[in-house]
Amino acid sequence: MNDPLQPIHPVVLIGGGPGAWDLITVRGMRRLQDAEVILADHLGPTAELSQLVDVTTKHIIDVSKLPYGKQVAQERINELLIEHARAGKKVARLKGGDPYIFGRGFEELQACAEAGVPCEVVPGVTSAVSVPALAGVPVTQRGVVHNFTVISGHLPPRHEKSLNDWEALARTGGTLSVIMGVKNAPKIADALMQAGRDAETPAVVIQEGSTEAERVVRCTLGTLGATMREHEIKPPAVYVIGEVAGL
Amino acid sequence: MNDPLQPIHPVVLIGGGPGAWDLITVRGMRRLQDAEVILADHLGPTAELSQLVDVTTKHIIDVSKLPYGKQVAQERINELLIEHARAGKKVARLKGGDPYIFGRGFEELQACAEAGVPCEVVPGVTSAVSVPALAGVPVTQRGVVHNFTVISGHLPPRHEKSLNDWEALARTGGTLSVIMGVKNAPKIADALMQAGRDAETPAVVIQEGSTEAERVVRCTLGTLGATMREHEIKPPAVYVIGEVAGL
Repeated sequence: MNDPLQPIHPVVLIGGGPGAWDLITVRGMRRLQDAEVILADHLGPTAELSQLVDVTTKHIIDVSKLPYGKQVAQERINELLIEHARAGKKVARLKGGDPYIFGRGFEELQACAEAGVPCEVVPGVTSAVSVPALAGVPVTQRGVVHNFTVISGHLPPRHEKSLNDWEALARTGGTLSVIMGVKNAPKIADALMQAGRDAETPAVVIQEGSTEAERVVRCTLGTLGATMREHEIKPPAVYVIGEVAGL
Repeated sequence: MNDPLQPIHPVVLIGGGPGAWDLITVRGMRRLQDAEVILADHLGPTAELSQLVDVTTKHIIDVSKLPYGKQVAQERINELLIEHARAGKKVARLKGGDPYIFGRGFEELQACAEAGVPCEVVPGVTSAVSVPALAGVPVTQRGVVHNFTVISGHLPPRHEKSLNDWEALARTGGTLSVIMGVKNAPKIADALMQAGRDAETPAVVIQEGSTEAERVVRCTLGTLGATMREHEIKPPAVYVIGEVAGL
């Protein structure tokens, strides 16, 4: 077995956690310290990167500032990973949360694989669970829920490209944690209520969780849209819908 | 704002991650190092605790060996947390995965709160996501799924105490990741198929993920029960059902 401290791949995709620098894993921190090139965006612990590594010795590329449109930027990120790996550099791609939870991490891994560049994945703490936890909301509780669902809210219900069955999601019996769903919150709440989820179901909204800028607002499913508008909630934010939000 | 490195509570519940010692968060490791008493069970990084702290300087209590029945053991854990905190000790409760994902963490927090003992929670990497990730299975992938559900499989479908609606869970459109569901796997697979989930849906089973003892078996929803029996899969194990298991 390989020593887990020794990276064996030229590219490593690292889940950086929800934002606070010390919520990255020990493995993630060590891989960052070992890297020569770090591709970071505005999510995860990027703002506090100097707590984790000596930034003066690293080539740090802020990929959130790439001068491209959204789709093209992802392709350019893939190219940069491969280019620097082929140049013999140890490359770390620092991502917010977990690389495989709506992070397009698998796309980056596939791009590397297609280019013949081996790539390692280091899991991270997802904001969908940790941000509520840090605000005092457990996504599960014994005797209350036996499942929870993490949902990307980037598309509204009934959008032709949406892969979510909101009728089923309303009836799982579990907690729902929605990320990337600020803009579509009113439509998502409506879809869940139309499918039978009680308007009185407790809800909690957390903006910029785990950081100094964290804001927490409690409401119900019925008042979610209005509450978020009233409090001018902006991304990144998570909202949790379910009995656990009222514990 | 408090320095996140300085614990401000006498008791801290720490998510230790799936098993490999370096998949705990930096905050979790530092809280362990700062603790005087550590309550650990057989999950998470306990077997490799000496990689994280100088175990000779800690009072380590293996709560998985408490001479009680299962229910009573939890009550005794709660008591021990409170007793040591009241004795002026800094107490860490090390748990597998994340404390709030089917970990009874909220119960421990509530017990401390009722006793007037402040308690901090440090999120962890959940095995429901990280174990598949380390085995190459992303729980989400763009264009394939927009949600995933983590389910406790400790009760079979239609059990009077089950809080899972398996009909709805079969139709979310997303990935299902089941933990604590080894024994009930055949009944869970049947319930999902009866509710319309295709028997050909890819599945993957991972036993003791992230550790040297890791075993990975690929199958389909239709063959899940037989495959797990044939390979003699034992807890702790995770299984993932969904298109992502075939990527």
